[in-house]
Amino acid sequence: MQGGGAQGLPEKGWVVAEIFITPLGTGSPTIRDSIRDLYRLVRQSGLTHELTAMGTLVEGPIDEVFSLTRRLHDACFEAGSGTSRVVTSLRVDERRGEALTLAGKVQGAGDQG
Amino acid sequence: MQGGGAQGLPEKGWVVAEIFITPLGTGSPTIRDSIRDLYRLVRQSGLTHELTAMGTLVEGPIDEVFSLTRRLHDACFEAGSGTSRVVTSLRVDERRGEALTLAGKVQGAGDQG
Amino acid sequence: MQGGGAQGLPEKGWVVAEIFITPLGTGSPTIRDSIRDLYRLVRQSGLTHELTAMGTLVEGPIDEVFSLTRRLHDACFEAGSGTSRVVTSLRVDERRGEALTLAGKVQGAGDQG
Amino acid sequence: MQGGGAQGLPEKGWVVAEIFITPLGTGSPTIRDSIRDLYRLVRQSGLTHELTAMGTLVEGPIDEVFSLTRRLHDACFEAGSGTSRVVTSLRVDERRGEALTLAGKVQGAGDQG
Repeated sequence: MQGGGAQGLPEKGWVVAEIFITPLGTGSPTIRDSIRDLYRLVRQSGLTHELTAMGTLVEGPIDEVFSLTRRLHDACFEAGSGTSRVVTSLRVDERRGEALTLAGKVQGAGDQG
Repeated sequence: MQGGGAQGLPEKGWVVAEIFITPLGTGSPTIRDSIRDLYRLVRQSGLTHELTAMGTLVEGPIDEVFSLTRRLHDACFEAGSGTSRVVTSLRVDERRGEALTLAGKVQGAGDQG
Repeated sequence: MQGGGAQGLPEKGWVVAEIFITPLGTGSPTIRDSIRDLYRLVRQSGLTHELTAMGTLVEGPIDEVFSLTRRLHDACFEAGSGTSRVVTSLRVDERRGEALTLAGKVQGAGDQG
Repeated sequence: MQGGGAQGLPEKGWVVAEIFITPLGTGSPTIRDSIRDLYRLVRQSGLTHELTAMGTLVEGPIDEVFSLTRRLHDACFEAGSGTSRVVTSLRVDERRGEALTLAGKVQGAGDQG
């Protein structure tokens, strides 16, 4: 988790990730209330993050990303009006040597002259 | 594909989706070149879209979203320096009666007072 | 879609894919009824398929895989006790030159001496 | 993590999950060698598991599933001929009250008379 590199980011263990959490059987097609409750946990994590229409993007040490995902999954059972089934998806992207960042990944792709 | 509703969007077939495409065996950990080539197809589709660090978000008629995904998958074999294997993921979210939009979904989740 | 190769499969457009479909707001954590209704469409597609605990695997021409996914997504709104929101995920894996198959992919990975 | 229920499974924290790990920039479209190396870790985990053509399914305590995913992600950088970029996906499905199992989920869906 330590390291260097041009950006001052660690050489390993620094990831960009997407988390999305789906409560099932809530009786409502709107999961907005659940998402609001969960978003509080995202902010409290201190990780760089961005909400999109299809999930939450985070950037930081892989252990913290896994730990946040785990807390969101548990919290979703109590979030909104509660549910008894939750499907949680996590996708983690790590490049060693030159760490990825939320800002850098989008810029790279958009840079198209 | 026609319809009504508060937003003037169709009552069925209007989706928000995430597409991400991964070329394998390219010999480089950077897939930036591929992504630039593919992004041209996204813009040409005319769909409302947004690039994120973990994929491309699009909004529009489901048939056009599937068709764009199919074109991106094929194009990825020739994009960048070329590859012989491509993994394409598509996640589509549709709500009937009150269509989802890219702008509306984020606002809903972020609205947390 | 025609071609050759050791297995007699086409050189392009032959894919292995995973489809999973999630109805939201059904009021029940069990989506078994929906899945049964949808599975009929999978069998009728004529594609080689396999049900797993986390989705449906199919193998065949990419156009047929996309078309089946589209039909499953639509059918899910009416399946089980009905719902107004459906999230559908599709992940397609294609290798050109030497097509992937459901049977070959597992055997390859499991072959570990 | 302890509990009861008809199946003797814990009432919370017991999950069915899918893990798939993609090394990028390996120079070869075949990721079979990486998968073999990783599969050893899956077996050593002691979790109930099943290899499919599109990923590895596991069943067990959520903490062990997250921990295995984390080890697989790290190991993938050294697996096969090595790589500097890895994308890892994890999808976890948990039902409280009546835990899901790999065997039960497939049987439920396939049970269609």
